[in-house]
Amino acid sequence: MAPKIKDVAKHAGVSVTTVSRVLNGEKYVKDDLKARVQRAIDELGYTPSHIARSLVRQKTNLIGVIVPDVTSSFYSTILSTIERTASLNDYNLLVCNIIEDTDKELKYLQVFQQMRVDGIIIMHEKINDDIRDLILKLDIPIIFSSVKPVDQKFISVIIDDYAAAYEATRHLIRLGHTRIGFIGGDMRDVTSGQNRYIGYSQALADCGVDQVDDYIRFGDYKTQSGYDKMKEILSGETYPTAVFAVSDDMAVGAMNYIHDHGLKVPNDIAVVGFDGSQLTEQVRPRLSSMEQPILEMGKVTVEKLLDLITDSEAPQSEDVILKHKLVVRDSCTAGIKSQKA
Amino acid sequence: MAPKIKDVAKHAGVSVTTVSRVLNGEKYVKDDLKARVQRAIDELGYTPSHIARSLVRQKTNLIGVIVPDVTSSFYSTILSTIERTASLNDYNLLVCNIIEDTDKELKYLQVFQQMRVDGIIIMHEKINDDIRDLILKLDIPIIFSSVKPVDQKFISVIIDDYAAAYEATRHLIRLGHTRIGFIGGDMRDVTSGQNRYIGYSQALADCGVDQVDDYIRFGDYKTQSGYDKMKEILSGETYPTAVFAVSDDMAVGAMNYIHDHGLKVPNDIAVVGFDGSQLTEQVRPRLSSMEQPILEMGKVTVEKLLDLITDSEAPQSEDVILKHKLVVRDSCTAGIKSQKA
Repeated sequence: MAPKIKDVAKHAGVSVTTVSRVLNGEKYVKDDLKARVQRAIDELGYTPSHIARSLVRQKTNLIGVIVPDVTSSFYSTILSTIERTASLNDYNLLVCNIIEDTDKELKYLQVFQQMRVDGIIIMHEKINDDIRDLILKLDIPIIFSSVKPVDQKFISVIIDDYAAAYEATRHLIRLGHTRIGFIGGDMRDVTSGQNRYIGYSQALADCGVDQVDDYIRFGDYKTQSGYDKMKEILSGETYPTAVFAVSDDMAVGAMNYIHDHGLKVPNDIAVVGFDGSQLTEQVRPRLSSMEQPILEMGKVTVEKLLDLITDSEAPQSEDVILKHKLVVRDSCTAGIKSQKA
Repeated sequence: MAPKIKDVAKHAGVSVTTVSRVLNGEKYVKDDLKARVQRAIDELGYTPSHIARSLVRQKTNLIGVIVPDVTSSFYSTILSTIERTASLNDYNLLVCNIIEDTDKELKYLQVFQQMRVDGIIIMHEKINDDIRDLILKLDIPIIFSSVKPVDQKFISVIIDDYAAAYEATRHLIRLGHTRIGFIGGDMRDVTSGQNRYIGYSQALADCGVDQVDDYIRFGDYKTQSGYDKMKEILSGETYPTAVFAVSDDMAVGAMNYIHDHGLKVPNDIAVVGFDGSQLTEQVRPRLSSMEQPILEMGKVTVEKLLDLITDSEAPQSEDVILKHKLVVRDSCTAGIKSQKA
């Protein structure tokens, strides 16, 4: 067992009150008592309990983080930046990895409350009524990072998903593509689901390119679903000459199915992803991607949260929009070859 | 601000002591007082502070985790399993992401102590004297997961790295390769560095295959270093027909350089990785890999830690060896084509 304050008192031959007075740096403690207490502290390796100090300070320097899937390249990168920025500011992370598990999220939000975290970061937007009610009741500063829930009463650090999807699609149109497929996200998601789909759809409409429902599927952002959805698209009568997938993981899954199906990226089918995760450079051909500023997003998230924690006058509701950028690599540069149908 | 016990007392029109007695389920509290306190708790949404309860219970249900790099596919997967197993047992994770930063690790270990975590999981083995001294002084149950520090006084959940590297190399020899390169890890690491290198080297010796120093490099386990080291190997007079890299990330980097250099995997150069991370299925050709049982490793780590936390008689030092398995995919099946030199 770690030594307690009473062990220090016993070892120094003084009262617990005296040890406490020394620890609190109070005046009027005799020098020889101070020295004895300090020696006992050193000899026993005593550390004042964070718990005990928290009771006094009403501050824990803890941030609770809810991440949908820490094994995704996007989320693990943003989490690592959040951790670095928090650590530089002497905050520590309690991390909860939910995988579409509302019960677990509710439980963790309650744990965050009981642990008296100073703030909470949430990285998904599927907020049901139970979770919204709890969040509103918690009265703890909260930031949504990379997502924006339908309820507007929060701060979200995001990009303009509509504009980003619009530009990615426009890029494919400029390359000469007129049959452009789409692998979207969950349409219940305002951020990555709906807005990215609307951006894709609007770009086609504005450029007079037909939207073909057979070329459109919706997945769950992961590699396997990109693979499965591309398989469905390529099982049709005709196939698209380009595909835009709203996560890099799905785009890589799509590239893999195209490869396994005996076709080439980009010559037969061009592919563009979304996120700008490290996966874009790990695959061949390298994946063109609509890049989110992942590192900046993590940093700004923590800075905004610290503002909320330390300044009660800080705005409680705001969209912090960071810049997106299309990074063109090898998966969509080539021209269009002859196509089936 | 979240309501405090004194707010509940005021709202119910009773003393703080009464609220405390109700919360602690003490007998001899009048039913009408109980009802009033319960109503005040419900109306204010009061939750007893975890901090206050921890002081009484001397247990926080917190586990501190030190992970070298949460963006690596291997570590993020093992972390997600650790989190799931901990959560099922009502434990929560304090996560520290160190990237070769000893000072940060020392700071975090002290934070863990101050937070009175019930246990600590460490996923790297570069334990310098300062860190070892602190760990020994902490007197908190500690498990090393996926690594084994030189100091033997701990429990490590690992695989037999020597045997795993030996078998991977033997597999390449059986395929007919006689010029087998190696991209190793940090030779200061007992686990992934030294033992994997010795396994590789011994397999060559046992099979009478020459070890060629020009085909051997040591990286940092990441994709970029696999790429750079493969470039160095291929800049030599002759080149190997197969390469064994001791992480999947480095193996993928090596495959990418081979591709960018105009050669084919596996026809020109076969590649085998190590870890069995999800990257093995995300790349083309799919990567053959010496698989660690990542999910089981995370689960066993937490179970062993909970044994240590709850049972003071549990052994303090043990090597828990899990089974490795070579999973052959597309990166090393083909026969050997004609080679330069």
